[in-house]
Amino acid sequence: MIYITRRERFNAAHRLFRADFSDEQNKEVFGKCSNPNWHGHNYELFVTVKGEVNPETGFLTNLKLLSQLIKDRIIEKVDHKNINMEVAFMKDKFASTEVLAMSIWDELETGVQALGASLHCIKLHESENNFVEYFGN
Amino acid sequence: MIYITRRERFNAAHRLFRADFSDEQNKEVFGKCSNPNWHGHNYELFVTVKGEVNPETGFLTNLKLLSQLIKDRIIEKVDHKNINMEVAFMKDKFASTEVLAMSIWDELETGVQALGASLHCIKLHESENNFVEYFGN
Amino acid sequence: MIYITRRERFNAAHRLFRADFSDEQNKEVFGKCSNPNWHGHNYELFVTVKGEVNPETGFLTNLKLLSQLIKDRIIEKVDHKNINMEVAFMKDKFASTEVLAMSIWDELETGVQALGASLHCIKLHESENNFVEYFGN
Amino acid sequence: MIYITRRERFNAAHRLFRADFSDEQNKEVFGKCSNPNWHGHNYELFVTVKGEVNPETGFLTNLKLLSQLIKDRIIEKVDHKNINMEVAFMKDKFASTEVLAMSIWDELETGVQALGASLHCIKLHESENNFVEYFGN
Amino acid sequence: MIYITRRERFNAAHRLFRADFSDEQNKEVFGKCSNPNWHGHNYELFVTVKGEVNPETGFLTNLKLLSQLIKDRIIEKVDHKNINMEVAFMKDKFASTEVLAMSIWDELETGVQALGASLHCIKLHESENNFVEYFGN
Amino acid sequence: MIYITRRERFNAAHRLFRADFSDEQNKEVFGKCSNPNWHGHNYELFVTVKGEVNPETGFLTNLKLLSQLIKDRIIEKVDHKNINMEVAFMKDKFASTEVLAMSIWDELETGVQALGASLHCIKLHESENNFVEYFGN
Repeated sequence: MIYITRRERFNAAHRLFRADFSDEQNKEVFGKCSNPNWHGHNYELFVTVKGEVNPETGFLTNLKLLSQLIKDRIIEKVDHKNINMEVAFMKDKFASTEVLAMSIWDELETGVQALGASLHCIKLHESENNFVEYFGN
Repeated sequence: MIYITRRERFNAAHRLFRADFSDEQNKEVFGKCSNPNWHGHNYELFVTVKGEVNPETGFLTNLKLLSQLIKDRIIEKVDHKNINMEVAFMKDKFASTEVLAMSIWDELETGVQALGASLHCIKLHESENNFVEYFGN
Repeated sequence: MIYITRRERFNAAHRLFRADFSDEQNKEVFGKCSNPNWHGHNYELFVTVKGEVNPETGFLTNLKLLSQLIKDRIIEKVDHKNINMEVAFMKDKFASTEVLAMSIWDELETGVQALGASLHCIKLHESENNFVEYFGN
Repeated sequence: MIYITRRERFNAAHRLFRADFSDEQNKEVFGKCSNPNWHGHNYELFVTVKGEVNPETGFLTNLKLLSQLIKDRIIEKVDHKNINMEVAFMKDKFASTEVLAMSIWDELETGVQALGASLHCIKLHESENNFVEYFGN
Repeated sequence: MIYITRRERFNAAHRLFRADFSDEQNKEVFGKCSNPNWHGHNYELFVTVKGEVNPETGFLTNLKLLSQLIKDRIIEKVDHKNINMEVAFMKDKFASTEVLAMSIWDELETGVQALGASLHCIKLHESENNFVEYFGN
Repeated sequence: MIYITRRERFNAAHRLFRADFSDEQNKEVFGKCSNPNWHGHNYELFVTVKGEVNPETGFLTNLKLLSQLIKDRIIEKVDHKNINMEVAFMKDKFASTEVLAMSIWDELETGVQALGASLHCIKLHESENNFVEYFGN
């Protein structure tokens, strides 16, 4: 079993809030991340897949195809977007890093299998100091 | 003459556009950076000051005071904000990295002098691949 | 289950040695790290906690509170300190990166639980080339 | 149980190809990585070992000895070399990052045991965007 | 006057040597970089251009066009290539980082002018420890 | 004219203080950096030299010799040392990053000339947020 990780990046705006909260309540729970005028990040996404090395090629899966999959299913939909307003797979969800990572897992899982590998981990950096990891459930 | 640089960081939303352009015109000139729903970045700000080393202390200026100056005059005003809508010193300006760097220079210049140093350079990273530098005019 | 990591940093002096060894013996076992006049590092501390995402907020735990916990229980006690001489939770212990990581775990475990999460990993970088990870026992 | 990681680096040339394929077939399967005139990388190698902290020294194993082991068995043999042509432990194997990581594991496993630890993971970065991890079989 | 920098990356093989030297002489002058079987690097290229901010757009030059220029004139020609054998603009030159940086300057200078800016600096990283800068002559 | 930079690293303990000040006065002027029990850093040193490319070799100067010079004259004397107590070229000086950078310049200037180049800049990082640059006087 070998694990391969591909990094991709995107820039997006988001906001943490509940629609049923007042601005004051949102500020109390979500702090400055609840700013109604949005803020944003340079997100770093690390997608780790696992499987056996193919004895015909010496690699687990074609990294170019994995990169293309991540671009098609994720990056094109979130890069230079507003995560709360414009991303179909985040509709009616919290735009937190946690929920974003779990949603990216759901978007990629079958595509990774079609490449002959298994999705192992979604790691999502919101800043150099904060990141989340999700290994499926 | 010695040069000292302090790095500070902030996260913000912005948009590149002209109010007198249609969305199509803005997209043609500014590309995906013109998204009307905003996008954002983890900005890295490097402030370089210069001067003579104080023979009484062995340093040019107290870095803690320089850091506090940058926080008071810049970071508090831009962090987790919308640069187009909420930052007084960017009012009626383009929210480009170039104009943002030049405006940060104007906000910091007198404060750096009050610390006994001269402002030398504002370097502003928008991403790991893009940054601007401004040395005053 | 989701994993969230917060990075904090501190600068400290330390020394690897045994009081019952001569300087020569210490040098033989601990090399230049045994210098009786101390040396130091910029430590990077990564604290990973795990748990379920709160359906009311979309996050596992308030990262601001996690950051404050790490600052209160660890950073304030070790930053700009001598780890061998001044850190109560390292008293009578080796000031190695291994022991420091394990001791940081002990200092943080209950506080993380009070935030509604479980401590998963303490990762401590001593330099860009060396780091340790501890997952509890 | 504690985990310690040592990073070492090397620069090397390589090529992905099958000798029984034509250049066109190799290009189709391996892309630009199949260039018959070679290309190269700055590889970053992270070797993670695990074990119990020695109560006599406060460390798991002497990191200087671990670094020397990696240099003797790996770095000297691959640094500034052509991985396909000049590395004995890669003879008749694909020069992919996956196979290279697995082969490095085989070269280091007994040496790590001789240091009183167990090999846990070989992580090999080919670029800032791609890396593999191998945990043995 | 404002300065903007764009980073691009490429992987390539190269060798330092003189055709009129024996392998022994080449090894004496160029060390392990003279390996006749090649070695390689992940090069990082930073292209800095300067000029006035356009009052109609708020930027110096369209970074997307600058990035495309660098890709067309440099990256396509050097990425996953052998610098000594396959790069037309390096023909009959030493494949040193110094000469490569100077040659990249010559390839980009007119293209940058066509974008309404002036080329200021080519910075080329061969590794995390070594880089060269060229400001024209 | 071409500029080449070599990075080297060292770990050291230091303290900012004046012997003629009380501990309280030192704390007021130098803050937590005045801790009488020392603290320390992973310093990153960037040495930039300049000159003409040698038409016989394609390089400015042999980087291996430059690296060796920095190791002999600087790294061996400061690595794993106490800068205030043990470094001859810092005797009776403030152990500030500014003064350390200027002193490193004095130690390297003639040696760089002997390699056929001119010293251009000493850049010294004390942390990821603070660095100084010195260009001679």
